[in-house]
Amino acid sequence: MKKILVIGAGRSATSLIDYLLKNSSAYLWQITVADVDKALAEQKINGHANGTAISINIKEDETRRAVIQLHDFVISMLPAFMHGDIARDCVEFGKHMATASYVSAEMKALNIEAKQKKLLLLNECGLDPGIDHASAMKVIDEIKHQGGEVTSFKSFCGGLVAPESNDNPWGYKFSWAPRNVILAGQGTAQYLQDGIMKFIPYNRLFTQTDVIEIVPYGKFDAYANRDSISYIDAYGLYSISTMLRGTLRQQNYCKAWNVFIKLGLTDDSSKITHAGELTYTSLIDAFLPNTKKTVKEKLKHLMKDEWDKDIEKMLDSLELFDDKKITIQEGSPAILLQHLLEEKWKLKENDKDMIVMQHQFEYRLPSGPDIQKLNSSLGVVGRDQHHTAMALTVGLPLAITVKNFLNGEFELYGVQIPTKKEIYEPLLKELEEHNIRFHEEHVQ
Amino acid sequence: MKKILVIGAGRSATSLIDYLLKNSSAYLWQITVADVDKALAEQKINGHANGTAISINIKEDETRRAVIQLHDFVISMLPAFMHGDIARDCVEFGKHMATASYVSAEMKALNIEAKQKKLLLLNECGLDPGIDHASAMKVIDEIKHQGGEVTSFKSFCGGLVAPESNDNPWGYKFSWAPRNVILAGQGTAQYLQDGIMKFIPYNRLFTQTDVIEIVPYGKFDAYANRDSISYIDAYGLYSISTMLRGTLRQQNYCKAWNVFIKLGLTDDSSKITHAGELTYTSLIDAFLPNTKKTVKEKLKHLMKDEWDKDIEKMLDSLELFDDKKITIQEGSPAILLQHLLEEKWKLKENDKDMIVMQHQFEYRLPSGPDIQKLNSSLGVVGRDQHHTAMALTVGLPLAITVKNFLNGEFELYGVQIPTKKEIYEPLLKELEEHNIRFHEEHVQ
Repeated sequence: MKKILVIGAGRSATSLIDYLLKNSSAYLWQITVADVDKALAEQKINGHANGTAISINIKEDETRRAVIQLHDFVISMLPAFMHGDIARDCVEFGKHMATASYVSAEMKALNIEAKQKKLLLLNECGLDPGIDHASAMKVIDEIKHQGGEVTSFKSFCGGLVAPESNDNPWGYKFSWAPRNVILAGQGTAQYLQDGIMKFIPYNRLFTQTDVIEIVPYGKFDAYANRDSISYIDAYGLYSISTMLRGTLRQQNYCKAWNVFIKLGLTDDSSKITHAGELTYTSLIDAFLPNTKKTVKEKLKHLMKDEWDKDIEKMLDSLELFDDKKITIQEGSPAILLQHLLEEKWKLKENDKDMIVMQHQFEYRLPSGPDIQKLNSSLGVVGRDQHHTAMALTVGLPLAITVKNFLNGEFELYGVQIPTKKEIYEPLLKELEEHNIRFHEEHVQ
Repeated sequence: MKKILVIGAGRSATSLIDYLLKNSSAYLWQITVADVDKALAEQKINGHANGTAISINIKEDETRRAVIQLHDFVISMLPAFMHGDIARDCVEFGKHMATASYVSAEMKALNIEAKQKKLLLLNECGLDPGIDHASAMKVIDEIKHQGGEVTSFKSFCGGLVAPESNDNPWGYKFSWAPRNVILAGQGTAQYLQDGIMKFIPYNRLFTQTDVIEIVPYGKFDAYANRDSISYIDAYGLYSISTMLRGTLRQQNYCKAWNVFIKLGLTDDSSKITHAGELTYTSLIDAFLPNTKKTVKEKLKHLMKDEWDKDIEKMLDSLELFDDKKITIQEGSPAILLQHLLEEKWKLKENDKDMIVMQHQFEYRLPSGPDIQKLNSSLGVVGRDQHHTAMALTVGLPLAITVKNFLNGEFELYGVQIPTKKEIYEPLLKELEEHNIRFHEEHVQ
């Protein structure tokens, strides 16, 4: 009998908990779901005999430590910055741990002790990071196995809305943390192109986009992620000359989002007090010069040749020029914008979200000098606004890999991410049973 | 006999320490100058009989607390984030304290206890903040005394290089913390114009500038400071309809600085590793698309109609297109840019810096409905690169006000800034003896 503790019962934990409960009898698991909101935890357990819901405030050290000691494996679905205390407790008490988040400095610091104690600290085992690692490394290892060399790797991922639920001109609804969408790209994007480091600053990020086609899901705009460079190490691609990771949005989204950046509405570092006295129209007006023109005319003038009919339609759909009241009292421009978009871009009860991912490889085989091209693509459509493609693709890789570890399918300890064959091979195989299947295609 | 402790012996402390030593015999003061670098402290004391130099690491709690207990008044010339511990110690041990920095949350939290113990916590008593408060409040109080009402207040300040030392096309050399110059304006600038709140985001801040003339010092570009709004409270101008504070630079500076912003060179949130392998030219190239053009041509193309001959000359003066090696190994784009500018914009041994400040008041008197206009202007030129106008105008207000307090010229306790008449009146009077004199002029 293994005792598994899942901390955090939010939307992204739905598919994870479903999988664990479904397999609990076969593998003799007891599943505890802990959340500040006990009702939410109970809802996810849904009366299953092998599940227990508890209420927990993760910041209360004694409670957290007591609960962790009662389990064998801890899965944290909390925001990344909350993993540190849990990880330290796990290593102290000899428990394994898994998260879908990037390996933090705190996590890295526990690596040696965890290895000595034969404890697994699994990270980056969701969608992105997670499925991206697994599916990319499968192809990279196959190319290396043939004696080949990867010369270019571009990889794109987007969490979007499914075509059948796409009823706003942005082609976007929130299937994960809205705040991350609003602040996306701030800083400097870094990538490698033809052997040369390239940088894109935030003020130009959403104008320097590529078009990526993923059949049959359509064409998408891609903007560069902040960090593409660390993947050279992570994937062992030391002789690569092009390395780019990007985020996908429906076409037109990026050029319209650029209006918010130029206006100043995505800044999160300054607080606007008395926001409750403003409308979104007067907020935008406050960012524009005082002239006799209408707010929309002033905005057009600001954007010059970057303005077009698509953008106008997209901004209109947010009631930006309709004197819509701001209903929070204060906040950064980014928070005020998020407040509006959370209303406008909410997944409705029967809305389906969609995940699209594409890796583009270029490589050379020992058999000849020609560059080979291979695209590996994935599309997943969600069931409804609870069982989203996002929850499925974040939760399943974590649940499957925890199961594989507990069943002794791989023996790796310390900090691990799913770039190793013994982790990704059974993971990708089982994901296919859930219709999460990459389509690989040689291109010209 | 009063014992005064000055913590921090950097360039900005020079005039402060000179003043205290010069007056030490008359007022029976013992001056201790404490710095991590004892030689620097000794240099500032320069063998004066009433001065003692000591070495101190402010982060060692026991040392700091022991030293503070031995004094009656503590003046901190350290960076603002280091004042907190000192202030808490001062209040605990019953010592007065003064800084030239903005009132921090930590300082505010000590206000009540300091008042109860009759301790002064003087802040914002340098140049800006400091002399700006004093000189503005003098005019505001005079207008109020006549029953008048201030309808508009604009205030500009710049720490620049004196015309006779102005030998680079930017008209700029560093007379204070270079890092603050590089990062200036990041976030959202907020001000009040004709009764309406206005915002300017960083990506447009250096393009939306005003021209301010201060006779006989010349015409300057002014960009809006991040916070103009809190001055409404600080100056009690509750019925004002225009409130703007700005920073002055020589003409053309702002339009050229905007190139750095658009390029992405002022971002401080992302680290560029392997910078040591780059030149400034290849760094700029990395921020631009890969085409066959030269780096300068690509940059011209990026800036479109924002590019001109002035900008080209200013950028050329920094050797940006001459394959100049970057001599630090890694850092944010902002740090790499700062490294270059510290070399290019260094005050030379006999260079003089210059402070310019102008307040522009509009007000109505009970005698009539017409708007009156008054400008109050200041210019100060430094002696050399040690005795800068910056050090003089930061250090003297602090030294004079500490002297006035110790001599019983005002009795105010708790957190104070020089907006009160009993502080600013004797301060402005004595500053005139040092040729720091505002010129007031009614304008049409």
